Amino acid sequence: MAGKPIVGRLALIGIGLIGSSLARAVKRGGLAGEIVCTARSARSRETALRLGIVDRVESDPAAAVAGADLVVLCTPLQSYEAITKSIAGALAPGAILSDVGSVKQHVLDSLGPLLPEGVHLVPGHPIAGTEESGPEAGFAELFDNRWCVLTPAEDCAPEALAKVSALWEAVGSRVEVMDARHHDRALALTSHLPHLIAYNIVGTASDLEAVTAQEVIKYSAGGFRDFTRIAASDPTMWRDVFLTNREAVLEVLSRFTEDLFALQRAIRWGDGDALFDLFTRTRAIRRQIVEAGQETAAPDFGRPHGDGGADE
Amino acid sequence: MAGKPIVGRLALIGIGLIGSSLARAVKRGGLAGEIVCTARSARSRETALRLGIVDRVESDPAAAVAGADLVVLCTPLQSYEAITKSIAGALAPGAILSDVGSVKQHVLDSLGPLLPEGVHLVPGHPIAGTEESGPEAGFAELFDNRWCVLTPAEDCAPEALAKVSALWEAVGSRVEVMDARHHDRALALTSHLPHLIAYNIVGTASDLEAVTAQEVIKYSAGGFRDFTRIAASDPTMWRDVFLTNREAVLEVLSRFTEDLFALQRAIRWGDGDALFDLFTRTRAIRRQIVEAGQETAAPDFGRPHGDGGADE
Ligand SMILES: NC(=O)c1ccc[n+]([C@@H]2O[C@H](COP(=O)([O-])OP(=O)(O)OC[C@H]3O[C@@H](n4cnc5c(N)ncnc54)[C@H](OP(=O)(O)O)[C@@H]3O)[C@@H](O)[C@H]2O)c1
Ligand SMILES: NC(=O)c1ccc[n+]([C@@H]2O[C@H](COP(=O)([O-])OP(=O)(O)OC[C@H]3O[C@@H](n4cnc5c(N)ncnc54)[C@H](OP(=O)(O)O)[C@@H]3O)[C@@H](O)[C@H]2O)c1
Repeated sequence: MAGKPIVGRLALIGIGLIGSSLARAVKRGGLAGEIVCTARSARSRETALRLGIVDRVESDPAAAVAGADLVVLCTPLQSYEAITKSIAGALAPGAILSDVGSVKQHVLDSLGPLLPEGVHLVPGHPIAGTEESGPEAGFAELFDNRWCVLTPAEDCAPEALAKVSALWEAVGSRVEVMDARHHDRALALTSHLPHLIAYNIVGTASDLEAVTAQEVIKYSAGGFRDFTRIAASDPTMWRDVFLTNREAVLEVLSRFTEDLFALQRAIRWGDGDALFDLFTRTRAIRRQIVEAGQETAAPDFGRPHGDGGADE
Repeated sequence: MAGKPIVGRLALIGIGLIGSSLARAVKRGGLAGEIVCTARSARSRETALRLGIVDRVESDPAAAVAGADLVVLCTPLQSYEAITKSIAGALAPGAILSDVGSVKQHVLDSLGPLLPEGVHLVPGHPIAGTEESGPEAGFAELFDNRWCVLTPAEDCAPEALAKVSALWEAVGSRVEVMDARHHDRALALTSHLPHLIAYNIVGTASDLEAVTAQEVIKYSAGGFRDFTRIAASDPTMWRDVFLTNREAVLEVLSRFTEDLFALQRAIRWGDGDALFDLFTRTRAIRRQIVEAGQETAAPDFGRPHGDGGADE
């Protein structure tokens, strides 16, 4: 179902879960005249070609971006600077540089100064993903009905923003433009803190002497296993998120800890009313998320009942 | 597919998610000669009758347990004492009193002294559930391939333990007998702490001024929404869990907090290696849980890709 291309040549730097999902969705919609990609390893580049999700691969990032209208960085955040330095000279005048990284102020601050005159910087973040990695893990529907946040610099050219926005809408996303710092605060809460907590509880569980690893696994259906899925997310990606969104993460973390101490106190002193009040308040949010189409209402994530049903 | 009954008359006190799932599974297998139940509300009792998952309902718990071989408490933990006092006189000599509560030492300590001579106490805990409540939320397959932990008192009659054990196996569970205190420690880690953390993060999110409720909902696919499901669990049940397993919960919570402070330090000082190491270590556990059949390997809990796929 090829429509009118939104972009002439699209260059993807990195073709993992997000890059390859974007490539698939752009191909599906006929949204680019040509899709070129590069990746660190020959293996990933070959996989992308073999899967037919890109038209051409290049081992040299500078060759990949030559003549591209839109370049999207789809690599871990801390690789951005070196990559941008290596491609800056090859970017066409009027080209747009965008990305999909989970942190946004850092992108504006670190890449802005590296770009030649006439290249537009439009950082972006599709709020969609899974805990899987690599070009084979992607799928074209990943962005359907998910939000994509764009955080252009104040002096960004309106046409550049409009083009990136149109592309994300065409792959199924709903687009929201906001201040980068606000994005980083909101995502610190809805994404970075949940991942940090999940990594931490899984770490605590594996270190506890009183309970064996075998028991943790056997009784994980009591709630723990839900955290292990998040805590199976890519270590490089998440290290980079925490290092590039340090302030916002530390801020929400300190609120979380403060609240946790209050809860700890309520347990210690047997304050059943305080526990009951909190546990009642938290139910409403779930309903709103389901209503907003950001989750299915099926209990237990639609795990087949006879097979995976559980929690506790 | 009625087999040979394991129990003559089975009395269920409470017919919510767990009680009604047990009733359905026992009916499916023809595992009891008669299933009688009681519930607090007339509405739940009528629902149970209408659904055909029990043979008889009684409004008075003492009438429900009269002549029963096995009585299973399926109500919130803090209701156990009053219920047991009201039924103790009606329990048949040789009857077994069991339960499905998520905490076990408390059951031994509080109910043991209330039982007449000749009645056997065999506390149990099926490690299976969802965040839903009530008689309509149950299903017969809930216990399939899930663990059920039994924590008999030291002087428990072997036949009593054998009968309860046989019933749980016949409804699809794998049975493990262990010390009640050890159960409480293990579940504090794999179930109670995850719920506490989930309730807490959802509470923190709803109180944060810097991010609106609307944003929390919109961007919940970044990880947060997974916590909201757990935090939508029944407030009464969970208040009772934390009040009756206080010590074990406080103990694992203090380990969790200690580890979280170390992680906070690593973020503050930009210690990428420490973050990367933890994030790598936590991946292995997930694989083992999937291998142990306690979770499906599908990314994102098998949420339909075009519909609910996400995380971030
Ligand atoms: N995963 C999510 O849920 C999610 C959601 C939203 C946004 N994001 C953001 O998307 C970006 C990519 O994440 P992903 O999940 O797609 O990761 P991924 O599946 O691991 O793919 C990463 C890609 O980047 C390449 N790469 C890695 N390090 C590189 C380096 N130092 N220099 C050049 N190329 C490098 C990799 O090449 P090889 O394949 O050759 O190693 C691979 O093609 C991250 O910035 C992340 O914050 C992720
Ligand atoms: N939910 C889980 O995931 C899960 C998993 C394993 C174990 N458990 C344990 O199972 C037990 C029941 O949980 P559930 O999820 O089945 O709860 P539920 O769906 O809310 O059902 C509770 C049942 O107990 C009755 N009840 C409530 N308070 C009572 C009281 N004060 N006196 C007499 N009856 C009362 C209710 O009657 P009405 O319907 O008339 O209100 C209802 O029939 C709890 O001890 C819990 O720890 C739960």
